[in-house]
Amino acid sequence: MASAEWYLPQDRYFDPDPAQRRVAVELYESVARLPLISPHGHVDPRLFADENATLGSPTELFIIPDHYIFRLLYSQGIPMEDLGISRADGGPVSTDYRKIWQIFGDHFYLFRGTPTGVWLADELDAIFGVKTKLTGATAQAIYDELEAKLATPEFRPRALYDRFNLEVLCTTDAATDRLTYHQAIRDSGWHGDIRPTFRPDAVVNLLTPGWRKSIDTLSEVSGITVDSYAHFIQALEQRRAFFKMMGAKATDHAAETPYTQELGYSDADAIFQRALHGQATAEDARRFTAHMLMEMARMSVEDGLVMQLHPGSIRDHNAMLFQRYGKDMGADIPQATEFTHNLRPLLNKYGNDTRLRLIVFMLDEATQARELAPLAGHYPAMRLGPPWWFHDSINGMRRFFDRVVETASIYNTVGFNDDTRAFASIPARHDLWRRVAVNWIAGQHVRGIVDLDDAREMALDLAYRLTKRAYRFED
Amino acid sequence: MASAEWYLPQDRYFDPDPAQRRVAVELYESVARLPLISPHGHVDPRLFADENATLGSPTELFIIPDHYIFRLLYSQGIPMEDLGISRADGGPVSTDYRKIWQIFGDHFYLFRGTPTGVWLADELDAIFGVKTKLTGATAQAIYDELEAKLATPEFRPRALYDRFNLEVLCTTDAATDRLTYHQAIRDSGWHGDIRPTFRPDAVVNLLTPGWRKSIDTLSEVSGITVDSYAHFIQALEQRRAFFKMMGAKATDHAAETPYTQELGYSDADAIFQRALHGQATAEDARRFTAHMLMEMARMSVEDGLVMQLHPGSIRDHNAMLFQRYGKDMGADIPQATEFTHNLRPLLNKYGNDTRLRLIVFMLDEATQARELAPLAGHYPAMRLGPPWWFHDSINGMRRFFDRVVETASIYNTVGFNDDTRAFASIPARHDLWRRVAVNWIAGQHVRGIVDLDDAREMALDLAYRLTKRAYRFED
Amino acid sequence: MASAEWYLPQDRYFDPDPAQRRVAVELYESVARLPLISPHGHVDPRLFADENATLGSPTELFIIPDHYIFRLLYSQGIPMEDLGISRADGGPVSTDYRKIWQIFGDHFYLFRGTPTGVWLADELDAIFGVKTKLTGATAQAIYDELEAKLATPEFRPRALYDRFNLEVLCTTDAATDRLTYHQAIRDSGWHGDIRPTFRPDAVVNLLTPGWRKSIDTLSEVSGITVDSYAHFIQALEQRRAFFKMMGAKATDHAAETPYTQELGYSDADAIFQRALHGQATAEDARRFTAHMLMEMARMSVEDGLVMQLHPGSIRDHNAMLFQRYGKDMGADIPQATEFTHNLRPLLNKYGNDTRLRLIVFMLDEATQARELAPLAGHYPAMRLGPPWWFHDSINGMRRFFDRVVETASIYNTVGFNDDTRAFASIPARHDLWRRVAVNWIAGQHVRGIVDLDDAREMALDLAYRLTKRAYRFED
Repeated sequence: MASAEWYLPQDRYFDPDPAQRRVAVELYESVARLPLISPHGHVDPRLFADENATLGSPTELFIIPDHYIFRLLYSQGIPMEDLGISRADGGPVSTDYRKIWQIFGDHFYLFRGTPTGVWLADELDAIFGVKTKLTGATAQAIYDELEAKLATPEFRPRALYDRFNLEVLCTTDAATDRLTYHQAIRDSGWHGDIRPTFRPDAVVNLLTPGWRKSIDTLSEVSGITVDSYAHFIQALEQRRAFFKMMGAKATDHAAETPYTQELGYSDADAIFQRALHGQATAEDARRFTAHMLMEMARMSVEDGLVMQLHPGSIRDHNAMLFQRYGKDMGADIPQATEFTHNLRPLLNKYGNDTRLRLIVFMLDEATQARELAPLAGHYPAMRLGPPWWFHDSINGMRRFFDRVVETASIYNTVGFNDDTRAFASIPARHDLWRRVAVNWIAGQHVRGIVDLDDAREMALDLAYRLTKRAYRFED
Repeated sequence: MASAEWYLPQDRYFDPDPAQRRVAVELYESVARLPLISPHGHVDPRLFADENATLGSPTELFIIPDHYIFRLLYSQGIPMEDLGISRADGGPVSTDYRKIWQIFGDHFYLFRGTPTGVWLADELDAIFGVKTKLTGATAQAIYDELEAKLATPEFRPRALYDRFNLEVLCTTDAATDRLTYHQAIRDSGWHGDIRPTFRPDAVVNLLTPGWRKSIDTLSEVSGITVDSYAHFIQALEQRRAFFKMMGAKATDHAAETPYTQELGYSDADAIFQRALHGQATAEDARRFTAHMLMEMARMSVEDGLVMQLHPGSIRDHNAMLFQRYGKDMGADIPQATEFTHNLRPLLNKYGNDTRLRLIVFMLDEATQARELAPLAGHYPAMRLGPPWWFHDSINGMRRFFDRVVETASIYNTVGFNDDTRAFASIPARHDLWRRVAVNWIAGQHVRGIVDLDDAREMALDLAYRLTKRAYRFED
Repeated sequence: MASAEWYLPQDRYFDPDPAQRRVAVELYESVARLPLISPHGHVDPRLFADENATLGSPTELFIIPDHYIFRLLYSQGIPMEDLGISRADGGPVSTDYRKIWQIFGDHFYLFRGTPTGVWLADELDAIFGVKTKLTGATAQAIYDELEAKLATPEFRPRALYDRFNLEVLCTTDAATDRLTYHQAIRDSGWHGDIRPTFRPDAVVNLLTPGWRKSIDTLSEVSGITVDSYAHFIQALEQRRAFFKMMGAKATDHAAETPYTQELGYSDADAIFQRALHGQATAEDARRFTAHMLMEMARMSVEDGLVMQLHPGSIRDHNAMLFQRYGKDMGADIPQATEFTHNLRPLLNKYGNDTRLRLIVFMLDEATQARELAPLAGHYPAMRLGPPWWFHDSINGMRRFFDRVVETASIYNTVGFNDDTRAFASIPARHDLWRRVAVNWIAGQHVRGIVDLDDAREMALDLAYRLTKRAYRFED
């Protein structure tokens, strides 16, 4: 492949039909420069705690931390070690960042037609000014260019926060986290709005590796000795209050399934005691997680934190990979998920209460039109999160709009989440959402489904206003 | 939002590509004014029994009886009481119809991009001549206009039946119904063709609230004392004969799953006796429903009534809502459905017999290409119903055509069902189907898949002829 | 319907948008005349063993052996006997091929919008030069034309092999097959490249009718007395070595589910002994199949044969049909399939080993984006087969590209399989794939997702190179 001038059309992701494209372009103009709200993601708050923090080398920025990228290289037989991924046993891995970048350039054709491919093209162009297409032939020159830019103050995280036009950025933090970096950001007097999110999975899921240790930490940080279910609940309430005081607007909960079921106090305490003694079974853990989702909904009714639920991923599917490199290595695989029956206990108890705001995400698209849109189109407490993870893509978004809106209305959805740990990819991800959203609205308009006034309102709603409202940033 | 002149383009729902649109428009012209056949729906026959019956106030016509509408308002936190929905406990609800209509106008933006939104726009324009868009600002003026029109003879149900160009309208009636209103229509000498449909769910599903009482009614209306399974079967056969004499062409069956399985006589009778004594279990009910689907197929083989099966909805998902307001309150939620194994006993026994015509509907679109199209593309007795309920929409229809036709052929589908209780929405629903169908056919033509002669035949088939044939209106 | 001149546009299956169509046409030009690689199918090798073999009469060529065709005629109530399908009991069936063809012509409208319809139109035009549309009115004239052509040397299989521009054609053969016809082809010195594929289902699935007899045949052909699990494994290894010597590049495995699980030796042997004594249970068979998939993966690691897995079809769903006419009668129905958990044991043991190449096919499209793309986008050993059977169609392919590529990349897919027993349909099937593929790529390009250089590479990859690489024809 020739190292052609990079091709990134201004009207990308829009349908080719000229009438639809004209409307899409007009709508896009009205939303393209709106501030970005990032209500859920995994950016490290440390990046903002120190005004001199940097993003590291190109390889450290783009490849080593990004399982979207290295999983595809691995799928084609490239060893993880060659990509600089650390081994749990401390075995040797490549530290030659230029060579790793070369491998990436040699195989960048693998990303043709993938979200990662278009995000990266956008980042290189819009943020770094790289106008050459990444290939094996251009890899080293691009590395030079990136390395030079990353060393300048303009590419420090705080500078980029402003340049990205971020209005607020929420991180994801363990229930036991002392939020030291968030405190440091506050103390620094910097104007950026970085907020924590309360994620208690590690103490709620009794089978999480290190659970017992996390409970001890929970005792420490909360000042409540967690020796019973009652104290466990008290400690969680204490942590939620602390997170809220530190600016949190939401909680977040992962689970293999969205199963919810309330336990009586003695049942819950008995399971908790077994867990404290290292005797909890898989069934104990399953029931306890189901119960704690109910408890979290109750606490959200009381403290107003928005409750996010991310179910359906089987984590660390590849045992060898997990053992050798740890978690988040690109081997999390979705499974079929059932919502209609699983969420019923929670929705029956709290779903009619507008103090609860429950945002449900999905990895099983078959549930969108079948279960989730009908549920969100009825229960006042429920909203649908945007396409997540594998579905955070042009086609994933198109399918989401096609399958969800007719039953749930866009007003039971919540705009966009970038859900990323790759800080530099945030503008590209939001821009892709905005483009796909306005293109979909334009398609509705040229088919006579919505008039132009409505189309304009919908564009503002999907690009900005729904997120702000859903996560209660207006309150 | 401004109260702009209402925007309802002539070529709505067609793809924007000029070549495809040209063909779609031509095909639409050939079917737009064909008579409407409504083989399955829930319109109240009482509307036609008295020539002076009226449709009530705008709020009584459009909002209070239509769970498509109030469920979405409820999902955004508007109390059911504020919308005039009666409470089972007789608690106070709004009876200020103008105020309810105002709430509707204020929130009509919620319906952007929904089928309800486009049906209502079409109804207001085409039936009522309202040329202003419904918003908070225009709500009262539109109410005035509607109220005035509804008071005129032109807006009585019988007049609208003619204006709608209905050829036949089938209602849905309990097995125990004496069909008094149908008899009154016949006695009146009116030319309209209103036919009943036999729906025995309330006596077949042993766990239906009030089942025991329904059995007593069945004894009364059939003149057969239903004290055994044998007499139950006889009574059902008697009722089917009565319905057929009253013009019925079809039966209809709802079930949580399409599970079918034949019981021996003594098994069936033992379950029936337990039910009579209030001792039937959930498993009894499950097996009995599965068995009765087999029996209904047998009776259809014998009497020629078309058998409709509507599986997969979990009724009254929201316990509080059901308790407070009753059933059909917008809280029925679909679940994943399995057809390949569940229908096998029925299809193995009766599926090769062309005297049976089994029309299967689905709420789980994942089964369309996977299970239903292959089944309908093989068994002579089976046909596929059109997209149902949440999927009776532009996207639902498009997905149906995309997933079903390649394997099953349009000739194993049955045209359109409006399946509505909202009489005034019937023309809008059929028109939407016809538009989406011809647009899909036009898409096939401009892609060189079918020639123009075939496209023209397919348009007539999908818009009119398939329904007439499938429900045996030609016999 | 009039017997119009047949309409088969040059730019068929491309989107109507002029910009997209222009790119699609350019890409199509670059791949339309590339050789065909047919790595998996069911053509009878006998057709090539004798240089004078013929394809028979039009009815014997197009209707009697093709369950895609007669299942749809049967679904509309046409008896199998009238279509010339032999009965197992030797009962009378039509042998009047002209009359059968007439029935086909009379009902060819059923195939509007189906893959069979467009394949057949293409075959009649491109291979047989028939320029008239098949209808009841034209059926006899077309029969004459076809009959005359089929009698000429140009329409013998070997001549067509060259005319079709086939580079290689793989058949599917039982593990116990002596590959006599393959040997005859080799002995004949003919230049065509016909290769066997190792399919051991009949000896691996303990409940296959005639299993015990197949084991005896396995003993005979392998020279190893299969009286234990150990000898069974040895015999299979012997057969694989023989197939490989005869040119095989791959194995093929069907299973109701993709369940995999390793048994200990004594477990496996105990089940095998029960099977030898006619005492294997359904659970035995299920576990044994799961175990043998693991064993087949192990052998593929060792001998390099590509492993193909075709799960999810319930064979012979219609008991009457199976009893009366045998298997492969158009009554195989897919079921929901689970891959994430079922494949985990196999992928955990062998999925990180690039010596294994596991190609997974699917009939449950809901798994494409949810399970299969994430799995193939991670495990180095795994690739995704193209849309199979009911999904080998314009829409099936479009859905496949839409759902799979963003997560798995086209580089974890394997190009096209025609998977057909209808030799004459091979060019039409590959042409349809190439057209749909380039149209999809053109759609990516006009949406600014891939530049033109990438689009050109992707076209060559999907049309030819990926298949060659995936099946190791380059080795």
